[in-house]
Amino acid sequence: MSKPFVFEKPAGMRDTLPAFYQKNEDIKNTIKNEMESWGYQFIQTPTLEYHDTVGEASAILDQQLFKLLDMEGKTLVLRPDMTAPIARVVSSSMKHVAYPLRLAYSSPVFRAQQREGGRPAEFEQVGIELIGEGTASAEAEALALMTEVIKKSGITSYTIAVGHIGFVQELLSDILGNDSRAGELLRYLNEKNYVGYTSHVKQLPLSSIDTQRLLKLLDLRGGVEVLNEALSLKPNVNGQRTLQELKTLYSLLGEYEAAQNIVFDFTLFSHMSYYTGIVFEGYAAGIGAPIASGGRYDDLLNRFDREAPAIGFAIRMDYFIEALGNQGDNKNRQCILYTEKRRKEALQLTKSKRAEGAHVVMQDLAGVKNVDEFSKRFDDVLYLIGSQQGEDFS
Amino acid sequence: MSKPFVFEKPAGMRDTLPAFYQKNEDIKNTIKNEMESWGYQFIQTPTLEYHDTVGEASAILDQQLFKLLDMEGKTLVLRPDMTAPIARVVSSSMKHVAYPLRLAYSSPVFRAQQREGGRPAEFEQVGIELIGEGTASAEAEALALMTEVIKKSGITSYTIAVGHIGFVQELLSDILGNDSRAGELLRYLNEKNYVGYTSHVKQLPLSSIDTQRLLKLLDLRGGVEVLNEALSLKPNVNGQRTLQELKTLYSLLGEYEAAQNIVFDFTLFSHMSYYTGIVFEGYAAGIGAPIASGGRYDDLLNRFDREAPAIGFAIRMDYFIEALGNQGDNKNRQCILYTEKRRKEALQLTKSKRAEGAHVVMQDLAGVKNVDEFSKRFDDVLYLIGSQQGEDFS
Repeated sequence: MSKPFVFEKPAGMRDTLPAFYQKNEDIKNTIKNEMESWGYQFIQTPTLEYHDTVGEASAILDQQLFKLLDMEGKTLVLRPDMTAPIARVVSSSMKHVAYPLRLAYSSPVFRAQQREGGRPAEFEQVGIELIGEGTASAEAEALALMTEVIKKSGITSYTIAVGHIGFVQELLSDILGNDSRAGELLRYLNEKNYVGYTSHVKQLPLSSIDTQRLLKLLDLRGGVEVLNEALSLKPNVNGQRTLQELKTLYSLLGEYEAAQNIVFDFTLFSHMSYYTGIVFEGYAAGIGAPIASGGRYDDLLNRFDREAPAIGFAIRMDYFIEALGNQGDNKNRQCILYTEKRRKEALQLTKSKRAEGAHVVMQDLAGVKNVDEFSKRFDDVLYLIGSQQGEDFS
Repeated sequence: MSKPFVFEKPAGMRDTLPAFYQKNEDIKNTIKNEMESWGYQFIQTPTLEYHDTVGEASAILDQQLFKLLDMEGKTLVLRPDMTAPIARVVSSSMKHVAYPLRLAYSSPVFRAQQREGGRPAEFEQVGIELIGEGTASAEAEALALMTEVIKKSGITSYTIAVGHIGFVQELLSDILGNDSRAGELLRYLNEKNYVGYTSHVKQLPLSSIDTQRLLKLLDLRGGVEVLNEALSLKPNVNGQRTLQELKTLYSLLGEYEAAQNIVFDFTLFSHMSYYTGIVFEGYAAGIGAPIASGGRYDDLLNRFDREAPAIGFAIRMDYFIEALGNQGDNKNRQCILYTEKRRKEALQLTKSKRAEGAHVVMQDLAGVKNVDEFSKRFDDVLYLIGSQQGEDFS
């Protein structure tokens, strides 16, 4: 096998250089401050978890997990998401903290990609989990907070699509008679393969009314009026109640002034298999993938022996920043370039500038090979060279 | 093989709960701000690197590396330090940025531990690298910045030990006639096994003068006077120049007002094999391991085909925070607990409090099972319940 070149990185791995790092930090701080002001508390979990615990609970396809063996031969995974690890923490170290719990995180997660994909295999998520709360208030809070985070960050053109996995699963099972037949159709929705969905439905031995019900599901995308249209699909009592809850949710979002950019979309189906109720995705103009996504997961905590309804969402930092485009300047950087005799003068000046909040490099001229190349990296360069005093910034 | 319990974590892996997380963030921000004000720019590198590139360059023992295979069968490692990855970046994406380069990082690193050890296998480092600078000014800057970071964070009782690997290696090789014999003694120093060092020296077939020179090395710990005592070991011309450079360094540190807590220690020998010149470690009262460490590594960049002298240091966040003890309060958290009829009132009040910078949970009473347990987690709880208006914080 050929050795990699010394400067190569593994597939899907990226370096973050200063300009992007700074931008990422600034936006991340805005997001974190907003989450904290809503009373969410940040925690951190380890990069490595057991495959048998968090790996299996995480709802990421097994072939997307980075796996390794520990010294005892147990399989470890690089965490593929933060929801399952937080469920583990809530059920162990935080077992005695009363529900509802509001937790937040800001962490890289890992998903192995096929080499051809070119997609990042490590990316940062900033998100929240509201655990132990089954009410519509919790759903409104999660959606309103996600909206607020998007707005505060400066993204002006965005949509938040809201679907409901429970509603769709039950409707399909009702029409098709069992869950496994429903599963096939759900896979088409998950892949957003609506052509495949349609031709599959048309082949099914169903009454024309049921065929129409299944096909009409694909049209259930749009404003709040979609909730009434969904009624025409004749969902069962559970489904009718769900539609009523979504109406309540919509009106609660109005109180938060967070209803304007909401669309309902009953074709929305997340790849995260632990979702049980509403699911939602934030889209920004010009970005092909969701900048944020979340949903209700009422069964996950049960796997960790501390049963509770829960809801959460994650901001996907790379896409989120892409949505913000190239706004904002980098922090001004100054350089004081000095020779030995004027070191003390340079040091005093540097100290006073730093005390005023400036970012100042203090550089011995003897350490610079190419002064022109070096100097051009700064917004200002002051030369304290030779015996002359009081030169100005160039 | 037995399955782990659902709440188990792999050996050496830790969760960071809200109180510690907040403290860690606050201190990290102080450190990062100081580094940025000195003109250092933060970057991030991937968690996974090739074993053949960064893994081999990293100077961490192979058995301490977490390894896995990628889809092509190449061995990957979880980065064991940040210095080697940064050398990779400087030699690739930043190849055209002129030296000297001032870069910084804040990242977890990974070192597999024996199960018995109980030491963390993942821990956070915040550090800097000053690359392309071979002068004493660079060394003074690194040590002065490390001192300033320690002081600004509020650690008052600390010592920074400075040694010089090049000086010691050359002295031992001179006395013993070759590098491999010197290597044995260096291993004792690395393990801080001074008893073993002494008895090994006494067994060597050396003149009594040379035996005394080797034994006296162990006494070379203390203030700046140690640099004169080192001269009595009769180092060669290189060694004499090194001692002169260390005197210059000490006087430069005086100009930075960073000389007070410096001690010289020629027994200091880092496990990081890429160090070539000065090495240094920061110690805080009551903490058994260094809270920060660094050194000069003039050969590492050469491995990545962009030769340059370089120096850097890293703060070890877990020990650093331990040194700070239990100072500082957690951020005040408030809760507004409401019932449906008073939701709008709760929302208005919450918004205005958040706008003033408070961290406020707004909680629907219907979502709380145990109000007493839930309420006691907050500094203030306001009940907006029933039809009555204007209740005060309890």
